[in-house]
Amino acid sequence: MSVNFIPLSVPNLQGNELNYVTEAITKEWVSTAGSYVVAFEENMAKYLNVSTAVACQSGTAGLHVALRLCDVKAGEAVIVPTLTFIAAVNPVKYLGAEPIFMDCDDSLCLDVEKLSCFCEQECQFDGNILTDKQTGRRIKAIVVVHVFGNLANMEHLMQVAEKYHLKVVEDATEALGSYYTSGTYCRRYAGTIGDFGVYSFNGNKIITTGGGGMIVARRQEDIAQAKHLTQQAKADEVRFEHDEIGYNYRMTNLQAALGVAQLEKLEDFILHKKQNYEYYQKAVNDIRGLRILGFEPEIRPNYWFYSLQIDADFPMDREEVMAYFQENKIQTRPIWGLIHEQKPYLGSRIYQIEKATWYWERILNIPCSSNLSKEDAERVVKVLAEVAKRKKDFYKMAKMDDCQLVQKEK
Amino acid sequence: MSVNFIPLSVPNLQGNELNYVTEAITKEWVSTAGSYVVAFEENMAKYLNVSTAVACQSGTAGLHVALRLCDVKAGEAVIVPTLTFIAAVNPVKYLGAEPIFMDCDDSLCLDVEKLSCFCEQECQFDGNILTDKQTGRRIKAIVVVHVFGNLANMEHLMQVAEKYHLKVVEDATEALGSYYTSGTYCRRYAGTIGDFGVYSFNGNKIITTGGGGMIVARRQEDIAQAKHLTQQAKADEVRFEHDEIGYNYRMTNLQAALGVAQLEKLEDFILHKKQNYEYYQKAVNDIRGLRILGFEPEIRPNYWFYSLQIDADFPMDREEVMAYFQENKIQTRPIWGLIHEQKPYLGSRIYQIEKATWYWERILNIPCSSNLSKEDAERVVKVLAEVAKRKKDFYKMAKMDDCQLVQKEK
Repeated sequence: MSVNFIPLSVPNLQGNELNYVTEAITKEWVSTAGSYVVAFEENMAKYLNVSTAVACQSGTAGLHVALRLCDVKAGEAVIVPTLTFIAAVNPVKYLGAEPIFMDCDDSLCLDVEKLSCFCEQECQFDGNILTDKQTGRRIKAIVVVHVFGNLANMEHLMQVAEKYHLKVVEDATEALGSYYTSGTYCRRYAGTIGDFGVYSFNGNKIITTGGGGMIVARRQEDIAQAKHLTQQAKADEVRFEHDEIGYNYRMTNLQAALGVAQLEKLEDFILHKKQNYEYYQKAVNDIRGLRILGFEPEIRPNYWFYSLQIDADFPMDREEVMAYFQENKIQTRPIWGLIHEQKPYLGSRIYQIEKATWYWERILNIPCSSNLSKEDAERVVKVLAEVAKRKKDFYKMAKMDDCQLVQKEK
Repeated sequence: MSVNFIPLSVPNLQGNELNYVTEAITKEWVSTAGSYVVAFEENMAKYLNVSTAVACQSGTAGLHVALRLCDVKAGEAVIVPTLTFIAAVNPVKYLGAEPIFMDCDDSLCLDVEKLSCFCEQECQFDGNILTDKQTGRRIKAIVVVHVFGNLANMEHLMQVAEKYHLKVVEDATEALGSYYTSGTYCRRYAGTIGDFGVYSFNGNKIITTGGGGMIVARRQEDIAQAKHLTQQAKADEVRFEHDEIGYNYRMTNLQAALGVAQLEKLEDFILHKKQNYEYYQKAVNDIRGLRILGFEPEIRPNYWFYSLQIDADFPMDREEVMAYFQENKIQTRPIWGLIHEQKPYLGSRIYQIEKATWYWERILNIPCSSNLSKEDAERVVKVLAEVAKRKKDFYKMAKMDDCQLVQKEK
């Protein structure tokens, strides 16, 4: 019997997407101005409980603008995690600045304890400016990524940032909808705590606009400036006067039409992903050598990506499991290659990277689409169970061989 | 009687746009991979008679990638026109390099005679490297913009570039479809002559994808590298290995679906724009003090934008004409503010800018959409004719007053 292909994470466009896009095309409003851009920005701001949100071309674009508005300049430094997608780090280089790579903790997010130690032990602070003693670079900002919908320890991180006068850019590209359920930031969404928060609507994200992003900021003047920079910094739209070096980073109305429809479904998607997550966790954790990584207890995650941890006592390693899934028409992928080990970042400043390497060796992301059926999730688990069983049979046979050997020797 | 608003340049989506977009949404292929991206790239390559084209997020993004691939580095210099949209220049700054601003000739495109003089008189050439004597900066490339669908003098420009070992980036964002009808580059389209060519599908362009661009290159390795850089330079897509600092600059399938439909209509749009252009030219050139700028004789232009030149013997100046059009619900706009006079470029290197200033004072762009009706074009001309007439009446009245004064004195 031929089975269907199960993708890792694909768009789910069964709501009002086609209606809204049809309207945008029929009215011939498809470019960087239009009512859907306005509506998407307003609806996002309302959802996140912030005053204003600015739509942009991608999460990468949003991070670039945010770092620019943190006044990161050529030759300065920005603290970043090594375990993330490279788009969280490249904008540092776009500005001519240099990253300082940090380890992750067990949430897979930036290890704030180590960040604190780094600032204390490796840097000099004159009451205003933090300088990396090794490189002499001024450190301007921290990019913290809420990996796979988990939340970093923002309570501690904001304390460190305040102490050392560092700006905080929250890369919430994977964590739209995640929020704290207790503590100082109770009910605060990922992205709304630091100086800037950036979301992504790439095709693999929890909601998609095909490609797109959104920027929020704590200060109203920052968000106005973010909008200005995404529009090529036009000070006079008619006379084409530009008062800064800006970017062509606006979202189109066509994409925003998708976004408005997708946002209507966000909580449904989170609920569906939660159900599959709970099923996976229960079923997989019964298999020796495997576990599904948890989310922090004091948050409501968006359950974006599920992380399967493959330990040494599982019969196959991460690469073998991935290949076996592929044979079974199930798409999985290893966690990102650590960024400090990527060619353009070799030789960059790093600080005590240990856990990131450990997790990098063991984590495989398994299918998590918001339209993943219970049957497909069961098939994913079945494949893992088969591996465990088959290998046990192999051991059994191997044992018999041992016995036979013993008998022969007798 | 209330009259309709006549916009300057708006999308025209009356072909297969909705069909293709509907298919993309129904099949849930809306992000940066998909059959429409492939088809749009293939169809563009075929139209332009080049082997490969790479879709990207915008003209700005394409120019950024092209300059990066010209190996423009921080501290180096790039020759650019001052009379253009700022997106042709900002990517120079994105790379930490500095622009050298050139004048335009009567085609509104970069003055190649002056370019040649600049290289000869103001620079030092050691047989390989061209250096601006004043700043000591190495000059790596020229960005030449084919303004409003006209074509720069590429024959001469390519000779200068070859002589001084400069890379050439053709900004063909406004000139998709324009080509030479004689000379060395006969039948060659704007964008296909230099080392790189970049197109734009912004909402105001001759065809639109909402927002988007396309890159072509003379060398196959350059175009492959352009694609690589637009995809965050992923060397291994599954393992997220990146061998360079890349960008998130891919076009989405949703936008490309529009693009495929729009490209089917390009030649129709050009024909329609040609007809309105010829009408405008004939009707406006009859009005004293006004003329519609021509296109170079040895090209087939795409007739993208129509430039109304308002001379001193017309009763109103450019600003007054624009205001009067606005009163009459007709959208027009002055030509772009010269870039060397914009705040972020004050103090940049300039060379003998004269004509650009002259044209900047006189040019107004008038409605030119590919769906502009004959009636609407007639209304535009009627408004101009009224201005000419009314003002004459005013002079007549003024004269009468003089006469009355004389009589009174008598």
